[in-house]
Amino acid sequence: MKTLNKHFPQIGKIRYEGPRSANALSFKHYNPSEIIDGKTLKEHMRFSIAYWHAFRGTGSDPFGPGTIVRPWESGKDPVSVAKVRLDAAFEFFQKIEAPFWCWHDRDIAPEGRTLAESNKILDKIVAHAKGLQKATGVKLLWGTANLFSNPRFMCGASTNPDAHVFAYAAAQVKKAMECTVELGGENYVFWGGREGYETLLNTNLKREQDHLARFLHMAVDYAKEIGFTGQFLIEPKPKEPTKHQYDFDVASGIAFLRTYGLEKHFKFNIETNHATLAGHTFQHEIEVAASAQMLGSIDANSGDELLGWDTDQFSTDVRTLTLAMISILKAGGLGSGGFNFDAKLRRPSTDLDDLFHAHIGGMDAYALAFKIARRILAEGKFEQFVADRYSSYDTGYGKDIEKGKATFKSLEKLVLTKLGEPTPKSGKQEYLENLLMQYLHG
Amino acid sequence: MKTLNKHFPQIGKIRYEGPRSANALSFKHYNPSEIIDGKTLKEHMRFSIAYWHAFRGTGSDPFGPGTIVRPWESGKDPVSVAKVRLDAAFEFFQKIEAPFWCWHDRDIAPEGRTLAESNKILDKIVAHAKGLQKATGVKLLWGTANLFSNPRFMCGASTNPDAHVFAYAAAQVKKAMECTVELGGENYVFWGGREGYETLLNTNLKREQDHLARFLHMAVDYAKEIGFTGQFLIEPKPKEPTKHQYDFDVASGIAFLRTYGLEKHFKFNIETNHATLAGHTFQHEIEVAASAQMLGSIDANSGDELLGWDTDQFSTDVRTLTLAMISILKAGGLGSGGFNFDAKLRRPSTDLDDLFHAHIGGMDAYALAFKIARRILAEGKFEQFVADRYSSYDTGYGKDIEKGKATFKSLEKLVLTKLGEPTPKSGKQEYLENLLMQYLHG
Amino acid sequence: MKTLNKHFPQIGKIRYEGPRSANALSFKHYNPSEIIDGKTLKEHMRFSIAYWHAFRGTGSDPFGPGTIVRPWESGKDPVSVAKVRLDAAFEFFQKIEAPFWCWHDRDIAPEGRTLAESNKILDKIVAHAKGLQKATGVKLLWGTANLFSNPRFMCGASTNPDAHVFAYAAAQVKKAMECTVELGGENYVFWGGREGYETLLNTNLKREQDHLARFLHMAVDYAKEIGFTGQFLIEPKPKEPTKHQYDFDVASGIAFLRTYGLEKHFKFNIETNHATLAGHTFQHEIEVAASAQMLGSIDANSGDELLGWDTDQFSTDVRTLTLAMISILKAGGLGSGGFNFDAKLRRPSTDLDDLFHAHIGGMDAYALAFKIARRILAEGKFEQFVADRYSSYDTGYGKDIEKGKATFKSLEKLVLTKLGEPTPKSGKQEYLENLLMQYLHG
Amino acid sequence: MKTLNKHFPQIGKIRYEGPRSANALSFKHYNPSEIIDGKTLKEHMRFSIAYWHAFRGTGSDPFGPGTIVRPWESGKDPVSVAKVRLDAAFEFFQKIEAPFWCWHDRDIAPEGRTLAESNKILDKIVAHAKGLQKATGVKLLWGTANLFSNPRFMCGASTNPDAHVFAYAAAQVKKAMECTVELGGENYVFWGGREGYETLLNTNLKREQDHLARFLHMAVDYAKEIGFTGQFLIEPKPKEPTKHQYDFDVASGIAFLRTYGLEKHFKFNIETNHATLAGHTFQHEIEVAASAQMLGSIDANSGDELLGWDTDQFSTDVRTLTLAMISILKAGGLGSGGFNFDAKLRRPSTDLDDLFHAHIGGMDAYALAFKIARRILAEGKFEQFVADRYSSYDTGYGKDIEKGKATFKSLEKLVLTKLGEPTPKSGKQEYLENLLMQYLHG
Repeated sequence: MKTLNKHFPQIGKIRYEGPRSANALSFKHYNPSEIIDGKTLKEHMRFSIAYWHAFRGTGSDPFGPGTIVRPWESGKDPVSVAKVRLDAAFEFFQKIEAPFWCWHDRDIAPEGRTLAESNKILDKIVAHAKGLQKATGVKLLWGTANLFSNPRFMCGASTNPDAHVFAYAAAQVKKAMECTVELGGENYVFWGGREGYETLLNTNLKREQDHLARFLHMAVDYAKEIGFTGQFLIEPKPKEPTKHQYDFDVASGIAFLRTYGLEKHFKFNIETNHATLAGHTFQHEIEVAASAQMLGSIDANSGDELLGWDTDQFSTDVRTLTLAMISILKAGGLGSGGFNFDAKLRRPSTDLDDLFHAHIGGMDAYALAFKIARRILAEGKFEQFVADRYSSYDTGYGKDIEKGKATFKSLEKLVLTKLGEPTPKSGKQEYLENLLMQYLHG
Repeated sequence: MKTLNKHFPQIGKIRYEGPRSANALSFKHYNPSEIIDGKTLKEHMRFSIAYWHAFRGTGSDPFGPGTIVRPWESGKDPVSVAKVRLDAAFEFFQKIEAPFWCWHDRDIAPEGRTLAESNKILDKIVAHAKGLQKATGVKLLWGTANLFSNPRFMCGASTNPDAHVFAYAAAQVKKAMECTVELGGENYVFWGGREGYETLLNTNLKREQDHLARFLHMAVDYAKEIGFTGQFLIEPKPKEPTKHQYDFDVASGIAFLRTYGLEKHFKFNIETNHATLAGHTFQHEIEVAASAQMLGSIDANSGDELLGWDTDQFSTDVRTLTLAMISILKAGGLGSGGFNFDAKLRRPSTDLDDLFHAHIGGMDAYALAFKIARRILAEGKFEQFVADRYSSYDTGYGKDIEKGKATFKSLEKLVLTKLGEPTPKSGKQEYLENLLMQYLHG
Repeated sequence: MKTLNKHFPQIGKIRYEGPRSANALSFKHYNPSEIIDGKTLKEHMRFSIAYWHAFRGTGSDPFGPGTIVRPWESGKDPVSVAKVRLDAAFEFFQKIEAPFWCWHDRDIAPEGRTLAESNKILDKIVAHAKGLQKATGVKLLWGTANLFSNPRFMCGASTNPDAHVFAYAAAQVKKAMECTVELGGENYVFWGGREGYETLLNTNLKREQDHLARFLHMAVDYAKEIGFTGQFLIEPKPKEPTKHQYDFDVASGIAFLRTYGLEKHFKFNIETNHATLAGHTFQHEIEVAASAQMLGSIDANSGDELLGWDTDQFSTDVRTLTLAMISILKAGGLGSGGFNFDAKLRRPSTDLDDLFHAHIGGMDAYALAFKIARRILAEGKFEQFVADRYSSYDTGYGKDIEKGKATFKSLEKLVLTKLGEPTPKSGKQEYLENLLMQYLHG
Repeated sequence: MKTLNKHFPQIGKIRYEGPRSANALSFKHYNPSEIIDGKTLKEHMRFSIAYWHAFRGTGSDPFGPGTIVRPWESGKDPVSVAKVRLDAAFEFFQKIEAPFWCWHDRDIAPEGRTLAESNKILDKIVAHAKGLQKATGVKLLWGTANLFSNPRFMCGASTNPDAHVFAYAAAQVKKAMECTVELGGENYVFWGGREGYETLLNTNLKREQDHLARFLHMAVDYAKEIGFTGQFLIEPKPKEPTKHQYDFDVASGIAFLRTYGLEKHFKFNIETNHATLAGHTFQHEIEVAASAQMLGSIDANSGDELLGWDTDQFSTDVRTLTLAMISILKAGGLGSGGFNFDAKLRRPSTDLDDLFHAHIGGMDAYALAFKIARRILAEGKFEQFVADRYSSYDTGYGKDIEKGKATFKSLEKLVLTKLGEPTPKSGKQEYLENLLMQYLHG
């Protein structure tokens, strides 16, 4: 392994210094080398850095251009800048102790005048990234294609009313999948940024969904062809940029995948802020995916529930993360997925060390949540409570119901002749919330 | 047919008097006997009155008891009152020219001390209703069981952690299905008022959904047993009273039905206010159901998008209803479904004639929307625009994509060698919105 | 002091047992007798029990009647029941270590057939409460009149279009103020539950606001007349039950009070859930009131930001409460106000001990937040950061700006001749959020 | 007057062709030269084009760069382009029959390297605009300074923690006011795009509001100095880009202005989409401003109530606009204000004629709403209903209440001795909604 130290020499490797450290540039809860159940915490957490936010984010918003200026962003030509930017990124990955990264094709490499040219540029950058991966040991969690920024995608990619755009998107995803394979990516993600509609007045909803399904089937077929054995992931989001996106939430995704016979090939990449924009808690989306055995990966961030857009903030809300982590651990973890910080600096966070603060906070919050969730599951109080609550289904007529042996008739007879009126049983929500508070602040 | 005229003798049959009538107690757009395409408008619209709101609504809200007092609500015993109330209701159905009604078991008949007693009372009331149906020609659009008001259902019915409650609910639905058959109901509805959760801390989401699926399978089996050939309907609602309901929206419903092999037996009863509470437009939910051939019936009302609860208002928003009606007509109509006014009087609307005003407005708005939508479809401007917009999929490689003959490889080759860069085409949203305004206010 | 122990003999006085106590019926953070800065924690926190939720709450919601049954709720006549209920309440206040309580006139005493009769009943109950206050040392934080439940108030009380209702409300508040004085209440609260509108179609907004102002002026005058020297409080809420309430939020309240010359006589009673329903954080509302020196008291609860109605939950969200507490402490505390648990048990929380769990959690969360906030303020890191951030206004032209000595002209000259372009300075939000997390989970 | 016809020769002057015209590029309801009460409809409506959206909008959003390409946007230097763009704009103003326009300083003129340079460029552009105004007769409704786009304003302008930025903003507004005077602007607007906060953790809310007040006082003083007699307007918006803006809504604005003694110098510029983002209807905000005699001008657009960001769409929702127009007309109109189309093309509306369609729709919708509102007010049915509803305050004790002659004591006596229990009176909301529907679709 090579130690990179050129672009932020003023900031060394971030070290674990414990919860009370006064050094803001240190981990308080994420101790990468701590051994838990025979694996390091780094291996457990599988943290990933989102290249687009961390290295292409500028702090711009709809009311103003970027505020964040990085020294490596000036250079004689876009391709050289793209390489130096990658160098800086891998130095950051290494210093922040993140074992993975993620990218969209167009944020690692600039677009050329034609698709052929774009592909050539991408090849160069991928080769450069491969070298950096090898040098640092940082791996690719997932790759994806940006099918939403270029004006050609303004009315969608695979759901575009123009078959020409569908074809273009197909070509672009083909290449992005190849690059993902080249870099050993463990997953490939589809986020349908404009796969939805602005107004039903000009939309054939059924035909667009048919096209989206065809597109995903092509991806499944092409994966077989090139031997990509990683996991395909759908990333739900209800809206923004479009008024309505087809993968509104996990349940919508399941409906879509099952309708088109795709359910065996996809899992979900769940983003915190997308969950809340859809009216769900983060934990809810995890539970829905897990109950369908389709929990794939996490885009770790936070929204502001009082705002109606995707704020993509770093989360330090340990309560929310602990609840999420309980559901993830109960589901057996994320498999080939990980926790990818799809989160951006606030527009006024213009210092270079803000990039470190942001990720330190995010990593610490998740690591702490992981530890609290493990303790909660180890002690089993919540699980026991829940098991007891449903225990009437473990025996007798309850078991018959679950086994499919009961009918309306048999149950009516039971009620009329033996059971009578049920006795309400307290749900004890306040007791359980107090218990959770005790774990969080004990 | 018998003409009822005892409970509101001061209000005669509501007549159609045209758009400019100064008589508030007249229809302006709903002319029941108008012939369109060989059917009366009354037959087209299939309007239904929701018994619970129209005859059990009191204007109560979480901050105060009822304000609406009806003369027939006092009597020596609950069963007699229930009968007189039904008499008044059928008089209203007749005067307001509604061909259908809908009920929950517990709003037509009071609950007894035991299930057996409740069933007996229900039988009496159903017999009384049968007589009234016969006398007036008013038919039952659908029946359903109230599985959410009684404290026994506070933690759900078929998703209750206590198998005893599941059994009780099964017995209750069995009876409600029988009564629906007895009254010739054309559909049977499931609205899972508390089939969801308050907190995941005490909930086994997967097990609850398994139980819900078992319950619906039992209903399907029992329908066969008793020869009920009507349509089963799921009514989605995202939340309220529970924090989260499993049938959050149509897409969630599809995911659930397909996961449990129930998709052939159910369609959707879509409620306007439930759509918007889930973050969707009314038209969106209709389109999603229609694209899965699962559009069943409509609960016609309106929410207030600036409020976060189910306001269940009567809708006079012709724009929204016209858009909905376009999608309904394109889907081939509602089949055995209808437009059921699941809408309630505002708390201060305490006059008896307010009940008439409310339904007159609702019926007029829907009838006008129906007429405008028919004109829009007849002229075909929107449909032609949309067809043109997707026409690239009708021939050549576009058709190949739809037919499953194209692959990522073949499409990439096309783009690289022939197609090049797509040309963005305007979505022309503002033009289409102007056109719609012209139809609405032309 | 007398120790009450009749209605929940199975539950003794709740004791402080520290953060790790396995006894759910113990305080983990609220140690009432702990001395801090020469006062007990009990004196600092000034906790209050909301009589309406704790002793009149039944778990009912818009979709079902009550689920919570208390033994003292049956008795031969309403007045006797009201007395026994009060006995039980004071036993609860004592066992839960709450030094204050709050009431609406109609939740402590049933309404009679006439106002005269209602007043007589209220007098009896107030006498009974006075005895219990004396026996237990529990004091009245505030009283108020319920001007929203009775159908007569369906279109508002002082904003009712009918002057008769205004007069009735005036009479009722007069009596409630007298009872507040009789019981030594330290504040009197106005929550305008229906002081707003359902639709502007039938509303004269200006005239209604004029009437509301007249009403409050009468209250101010009557306070002088009867020697009530407590604090008047306005409790903002944006909506629910009405579509729109005039005291939408603190800023609306300030606008109203200043427009009508009432700003010297009122402060604000801020409720957490009302803040979020208005689109604000709890801390925001506190800061706005504090910046106007109008911070009065707190209705302590929590909403669910993903739901659009007033859920009135007990809060165990220590992060939110700590931020609130920082702003409260910086403002110099609540003066004659306190933390009143305007929070209700969840519908399925039907056990008697749930009432204890709920308040234990609420009190512990606030006590912990108080301690963390004190530590944060003592260490001064945030305050120093903020002071530094604005320090350019402490000297030179910055000071001139604050002092009113600068003009557009003088500042333009400065910029053109000396200052030039400002240098952006990072807001360091992520750093500060990490710091907060460290205080919360250190 | 000179007729401009260089930049869109393919599109002539838009003509009024009546409601049923099949020509999409014609007015259906806005007949500029129609005489109503001695004034042309053009004079009544005072429509204005927002330069930033119509001529600087590109269709960009947070997920992609611009899609809209205009021929005049390429040129050898920014200043020349700015002039040609202005030429094109005035041609559009003329063809679309808009008598007014509005600008921010930075959207008409590019920013230079220093403030001095920026001012010089601005002077050139203003001179060019002055010529175009003279040539076409198009007038300036209002000017304003963009104090939110440049990175220097990332933490606010007058509320920036850095006094240097305050000074810079002061210099910029000074110049913008001078340019407004130079172009005969009838109003000057303050929209506090970043005058708010991202997080209270780094914010001194009170100090920032003090600074904002100082800034506005300086503007008032400078207006006197330069003889600007136009109206100052505050444009409320609750959030976006910042998490919280100080001018959250009209009520917040009133609270602020009154607190700092500014209420005599400002009125409100109300934007439809800002109203709904704050949780209010458009009509509500108009009524609140009107009741304080502070209704100034309208930023005419529409949001999507199911989305949580400022979509700035053109409105064709005649129902909403009619309600707004009723309140505006009752308040005596907008005075020196007007209806400014602060609305942007959808990202895929890339054709040049879409710019025309969008404004035609907006103007037609407002013109139709104006006509319907006039008819409603002329017939007086709603006004009579409301007057009757409050008539109890016109005489007797009701009048005494309004006159300040009644007290709690006098009213209690009345209730106890004479009035007794009030009789609830229906609010008749459904009746009124039906009546409104009749006006809209009669």
